[in-house]
Amino acid sequence: MSVNSGSHSTSAPYAVTKTLAEFIVSHPSRGWNDDVEREAHRSFLNWLGCAIGAARHDTLNFALQSVKMLSPAPQCTILGSSDKVDMASAALLNGISSHTFDYDDTHASTLIHPSGPVISAVLALAEYKRLSGRELVDAIVLGIDVACRVGLGMFPEHYDRGWHITGTAGPLGAAAGCAKLLGLDAKQTTMALALAASQPVGLREQFGSMTKPFHPGAAARAGLMSALFASQGFTASAQALEAKRGYFRTISDAQHWDKVIDGLGSRFEIMANTYKPFACGVVMHPSIDGCVELRAHQVPVDLIERIDLKVHPLVLELTGKPTPSTGLEGKFSIFHGCSVGYLFGRAGEAEFSNEVVNSKEVVELRAKIRPVVAENLSETSADITIVCKDGRRFNVFVEHASGSIDKPLSDKQLDSKFEGQVYPVLGQARGLEILTAARHLSEHEDVSELCALTRPDR
Amino acid sequence: MSVNSGSHSTSAPYAVTKTLAEFIVSHPSRGWNDDVEREAHRSFLNWLGCAIGAARHDTLNFALQSVKMLSPAPQCTILGSSDKVDMASAALLNGISSHTFDYDDTHASTLIHPSGPVISAVLALAEYKRLSGRELVDAIVLGIDVACRVGLGMFPEHYDRGWHITGTAGPLGAAAGCAKLLGLDAKQTTMALALAASQPVGLREQFGSMTKPFHPGAAARAGLMSALFASQGFTASAQALEAKRGYFRTISDAQHWDKVIDGLGSRFEIMANTYKPFACGVVMHPSIDGCVELRAHQVPVDLIERIDLKVHPLVLELTGKPTPSTGLEGKFSIFHGCSVGYLFGRAGEAEFSNEVVNSKEVVELRAKIRPVVAENLSETSADITIVCKDGRRFNVFVEHASGSIDKPLSDKQLDSKFEGQVYPVLGQARGLEILTAARHLSEHEDVSELCALTRPDR
Repeated sequence: MSVNSGSHSTSAPYAVTKTLAEFIVSHPSRGWNDDVEREAHRSFLNWLGCAIGAARHDTLNFALQSVKMLSPAPQCTILGSSDKVDMASAALLNGISSHTFDYDDTHASTLIHPSGPVISAVLALAEYKRLSGRELVDAIVLGIDVACRVGLGMFPEHYDRGWHITGTAGPLGAAAGCAKLLGLDAKQTTMALALAASQPVGLREQFGSMTKPFHPGAAARAGLMSALFASQGFTASAQALEAKRGYFRTISDAQHWDKVIDGLGSRFEIMANTYKPFACGVVMHPSIDGCVELRAHQVPVDLIERIDLKVHPLVLELTGKPTPSTGLEGKFSIFHGCSVGYLFGRAGEAEFSNEVVNSKEVVELRAKIRPVVAENLSETSADITIVCKDGRRFNVFVEHASGSIDKPLSDKQLDSKFEGQVYPVLGQARGLEILTAARHLSEHEDVSELCALTRPDR
Repeated sequence: MSVNSGSHSTSAPYAVTKTLAEFIVSHPSRGWNDDVEREAHRSFLNWLGCAIGAARHDTLNFALQSVKMLSPAPQCTILGSSDKVDMASAALLNGISSHTFDYDDTHASTLIHPSGPVISAVLALAEYKRLSGRELVDAIVLGIDVACRVGLGMFPEHYDRGWHITGTAGPLGAAAGCAKLLGLDAKQTTMALALAASQPVGLREQFGSMTKPFHPGAAARAGLMSALFASQGFTASAQALEAKRGYFRTISDAQHWDKVIDGLGSRFEIMANTYKPFACGVVMHPSIDGCVELRAHQVPVDLIERIDLKVHPLVLELTGKPTPSTGLEGKFSIFHGCSVGYLFGRAGEAEFSNEVVNSKEVVELRAKIRPVVAENLSETSADITIVCKDGRRFNVFVEHASGSIDKPLSDKQLDSKFEGQVYPVLGQARGLEILTAARHLSEHEDVSELCALTRPDR
């Protein structure tokens, strides 16, 4: 497929909405290589662990209590919970829990967390309709592809404007995956995408509050409902994405039309998906890596004068809170991330509890972290120097953070991350059972059985 | 309350989110004069007639069939229908039906259709909780005030960017009204507004499709759910509206901070609400008025060479479709509106049916309509000239369209509009019963009884 527009073109050179719809409808089941298939399973496993891991968090509980006011029908599973809700609410709630710890996946080229909006939607629909794992994996690959391609079409200008791109591109990916599962035709799929385009969710100002994880949940819900509406004949503009007053131009200050369809059907954006080793904003990861590495010098905290960081500009913009007071705020504090990285050698969910955020030694070291912006650094790099009170200096340059596209988590690391999230909620035996089932997702005849495994009361 | 910022200021001079929340919480019941109280009743009556009038339209049917896939609990009434759904879905569906015919109200200063998002949300919540008419009217006045003030803070730049302002400002108004009904405190109300701020709905590109009325429905749903979430402790940024990457700056290219709170608590934006005599885009109304008036000259269609229109720039931008092929498209065609205005002397819902849009005489006259933009005209004015084949010319200048703020519909005209919409659906006897009940809305002990009156199976 060839496109002639420059990357900042403001006139859409082709029918974006219909082109994506026709791709979704016509692309064959498992129409990709083994790497893509493997990455879909890794994305699912990572997302599932995150959702189950947050099943008892206040964020999910508050959302669930709110949804219960609607007396939802028990159609679908809330992962890790004994409650069931209607499929749209399941998409919402699983989307919320999967992003609550900010521990889910990141599409490296756009900063989209694609599984939250996409898998939360397609799993709910597949569970309700008792579809197969094969159908689900197909919907995951296509849905994530559409969400990330839409994101590519407006990154970074859209993100710079203040949008949480996960919640804005998410409804398109969720609608795409659900349209595939429903077997919609090209016209209906166009309508599903177009209706989803009217529902971008999420402001970056919400980072650090429960509304951040609400964004992928609401995006999942919007995408699923858009597909259901389209299946019943509901209409929208067939040019909703590319029109003068359509999605791309209204929500972004620049449009990269060519990037939306470059390699469509032959290259899959899920291959650029990455998984976090640390339970916090991804831009903090290289700095935390460096702090973990510098523990080898065994400098006691009271001998540390300061820790100098050179970081990408986004680090201070997204995670510049110097004095967080809650676990959630800690996830957006480079100061906190580095402090726990150095003190504990890790930055899992436990290191972002309210207790740890307010503990004396963490607060003490936090005050010694000195980040400065270095314009020439990439987002996956950081330069870290411990300056000791006795004048010694220890430096490390992290070129690629663990979990980045150039240094991906291994399957074993992913399993270990899953276990660390799921065992505390469901126990080891059940956790292992779910892990095995997720690793073989495409072989299931009925994915509702996998969902049922995550219920504590089963 | 005094504010020192210029109207295009980009730095928020005060805590907008909290200021609005404190106003909602602290303003007393019926804390306004009789004119405001009367306008609230007129807004309710007009909205109710529109919602019932569209109860059998495909737009609502398709949406209802989609919602039924979730097996919703029968908590609330779909106006004019025998089906019941959960309260969030009722907000969605009544919001959709009330805007389906594009016949609902318009806040003259912002082009917001405020009742769709606001009343659809607060009525559903009030019905479910069996609240009084007094509480409902209070929530309507405050909710519409917040929606329109938020709109004033970003009009026209936000609208120019491509947003359907009804769906973007709507969630804030709906959240405000629902927060009031739930008795939330200032902190919870701040959270409700902030969560709603992450969910702006609607692109202008959707005008002419079913997704246009979807916008106020989705806005109503989002606002109601935001208030429910806040009532359960869900958190959001308390600066969601005014922050650097908050609502106003992300979705609008200019911010008019002073207009959001100018006269807050003493002047109520519902006083700028207007009601349409014609079932189509409000910018077409002065031209239709003129065509109706020019019928007096009794020029037969075949003697008309052309009809020249001078119109406000928005007219061609919003309603420039020269050859509509469906009733919905006809609502966004100044060509169609003028054609039926001249041929039939009216432009009610019947004149926007698929049949009329495709009828020979209407199409014939439509091709003779020649609108041109006159930059100096206001949105409520138009200049219309019939140019006859024999050289005669008949001109009329419409300064204020009927239904505009300077020439409001009378109570009698509103009643007649209501009857024209409701009688065909529920019959005259029931229609009159509902009309009387709506006129006395503030006196009801339990608004669920009024909702029940609209059910055909009652």
